[in-house]
Amino acid sequence: MEMERIGRVLQAMQDRGLTQIIVCDPQSIDYLTGVYVEPMERLFALYLQADGHHIFFLNKLFTVPETPIEQVWFTDTDDAVGLIAQRVQAGEPLGIDKEWTARFLLPLMERLPGTPCVLASDCVDSVRARKDEKEQELMRMNSRLNDEAMRRAAAYIREGMTERQVADYLRAQYQDLGCEAQSFPPIVSFGANAADPHHMPDDTVLQAGDCIVLDIGGRKEGYCSDMTRTYFCKQVSEKHAAIHDIVRQANETAEALVRPGVPLCELDKAARDVIAQAGYGEYFTHRLGHFIGRTDHEQGDVSSAATALAQEGMVFSIEPGVYLPGEMGVRVEDLVLVTKEGCEVLNQVDKHWQVIG
Amino acid sequence: MEMERIGRVLQAMQDRGLTQIIVCDPQSIDYLTGVYVEPMERLFALYLQADGHHIFFLNKLFTVPETPIEQVWFTDTDDAVGLIAQRVQAGEPLGIDKEWTARFLLPLMERLPGTPCVLASDCVDSVRARKDEKEQELMRMNSRLNDEAMRRAAAYIREGMTERQVADYLRAQYQDLGCEAQSFPPIVSFGANAADPHHMPDDTVLQAGDCIVLDIGGRKEGYCSDMTRTYFCKQVSEKHAAIHDIVRQANETAEALVRPGVPLCELDKAARDVIAQAGYGEYFTHRLGHFIGRTDHEQGDVSSAATALAQEGMVFSIEPGVYLPGEMGVRVEDLVLVTKEGCEVLNQVDKHWQVIG
Repeated sequence: MEMERIGRVLQAMQDRGLTQIIVCDPQSIDYLTGVYVEPMERLFALYLQADGHHIFFLNKLFTVPETPIEQVWFTDTDDAVGLIAQRVQAGEPLGIDKEWTARFLLPLMERLPGTPCVLASDCVDSVRARKDEKEQELMRMNSRLNDEAMRRAAAYIREGMTERQVADYLRAQYQDLGCEAQSFPPIVSFGANAADPHHMPDDTVLQAGDCIVLDIGGRKEGYCSDMTRTYFCKQVSEKHAAIHDIVRQANETAEALVRPGVPLCELDKAARDVIAQAGYGEYFTHRLGHFIGRTDHEQGDVSSAATALAQEGMVFSIEPGVYLPGEMGVRVEDLVLVTKEGCEVLNQVDKHWQVIG
Repeated sequence: MEMERIGRVLQAMQDRGLTQIIVCDPQSIDYLTGVYVEPMERLFALYLQADGHHIFFLNKLFTVPETPIEQVWFTDTDDAVGLIAQRVQAGEPLGIDKEWTARFLLPLMERLPGTPCVLASDCVDSVRARKDEKEQELMRMNSRLNDEAMRRAAAYIREGMTERQVADYLRAQYQDLGCEAQSFPPIVSFGANAADPHHMPDDTVLQAGDCIVLDIGGRKEGYCSDMTRTYFCKQVSEKHAAIHDIVRQANETAEALVRPGVPLCELDKAARDVIAQAGYGEYFTHRLGHFIGRTDHEQGDVSSAATALAQEGMVFSIEPGVYLPGEMGVRVEDLVLVTKEGCEVLNQVDKHWQVIG
């Protein structure tokens, strides 16, 4: 039980005028209670109330430790949504986790016609976004391991290898480094494949002159890393080296601005301006970054629409990129931790362009 | 484009009195259109209308092939839900995919106060549940590969190995067999760990007399396999061998009843009766089976609450089990394909108890 974390969520609920919320994201429930379940398609919910009477809704197939929270159990054939409907405060606005699926939400709304359901997982997400000291140490540790994985990959890659081969090598490295898993399927993109920021590793063979985008991360003790570096195989054209310089400068410009109080959209703008001034604005097709912690993508954007302010303890990515369809792509990504007066860049692998292979 | 499949969905919508539906399950969209996207937290939807004017809602980060379906594109900072709200038939019931999350559904409902949103993915799921000939062949092929993986694992396992070691070995086998991935994280449970049907492989060491539950599957060409066998290490007690016989008989009893028209709950009852009559009824704690195809768990249950009738082309698991807390567990699972007059059991690995290691 993390009473201090639950207390912060109840405070956020009060600020929004909510007395009840249904949390269903397994990571959020684990964060708040230390109970982790992988529910697949089954219902799993933590119902929090302002008065401190919280309830777990649990399928009998789940195995959970003892906690001071009341447990309501059901089987696969019971009416689980009906059990929730019986226990909530009917008529009072009911906060709903953004991850709750229609299969549960719509039947619940049908049972509770006079109870407004409102999207309210920000009450939890805003708490999760600010890492406490223990979490900060886990984020640092994971990024150190990720630095090591990146260095090993850069030393391993040779002309003639396939993307899949490099991805397989990386999986073995995270295992060797003691990670539970990779925090997301690694992106290994050669040459023109890198023009798709989300390209999945395939049998493409690395050739001299190709760019090599490695967007990788691991997960150890429940927390994630995520970093991107872009290398070149054997040789690099002046144009591609210049694009890499621009993307790196965009990354460094944004990172230099990170401190408590800065609107996240200003970070996005600062990086975007560097790339636009160099004439590649239209080829930077995604947001600058995303929040990260227990999952690779947590709630929270660093984009032109992100009016929220950076706060101490937040961890997010700074990952500008330039993608030239049919030709190549470059992305340079670090994780940053917002500190009292600025930020700590969690990745230390050199960001300048480099020829390998 | 799979116009015949979309036609069957439109027919199912008509049967339910719906003229519009939002499909968001990436597997369903791929099944209907051949367009596969892994949207993560981003909005990705296929809007189907009875009049044949269908619309894709796509984030500019997605890479999709050309199709005859209209495409509406948006960026990370656009109001994607607003774009959907503009295009649906306001005032008409709007079918919603069970997988759609509150993050999109609640804001859409707010924009469309006079448009009832109803859970309607069964219009797609009922079509997906009945595999066509091409899909049946893929299910057969995958189960043949899974049989081979099981035989290899049974031959590999030795006293003193850890669960994790066996799980790692299995991953390599699916890769060697040409699978894209495992269809779910494999369950490898030794001894008392097997009392938890969903136990995840850890560093537990295999000892003589332990039961060994292997619940495993692979995915090749987009379709899944799933099978469970339970072995014993070096020796088996009379009691445990007898429990295995009971579970196998429950499996075989249910499989013998599978034919078009049989209520799925009767299959569950037949297996449950065998186990109950032997005195272990309370230790069979889950449903008898689940549907399977493009994902390991597709919509559709074989449980005491499943009043639906088996239909030709359906593929589901038959997986009775007995779980003795602190002691052991046994599960015996095959996939079955409902044929014109009965069923085809897709797994052929011997089901009798066997001592290995």
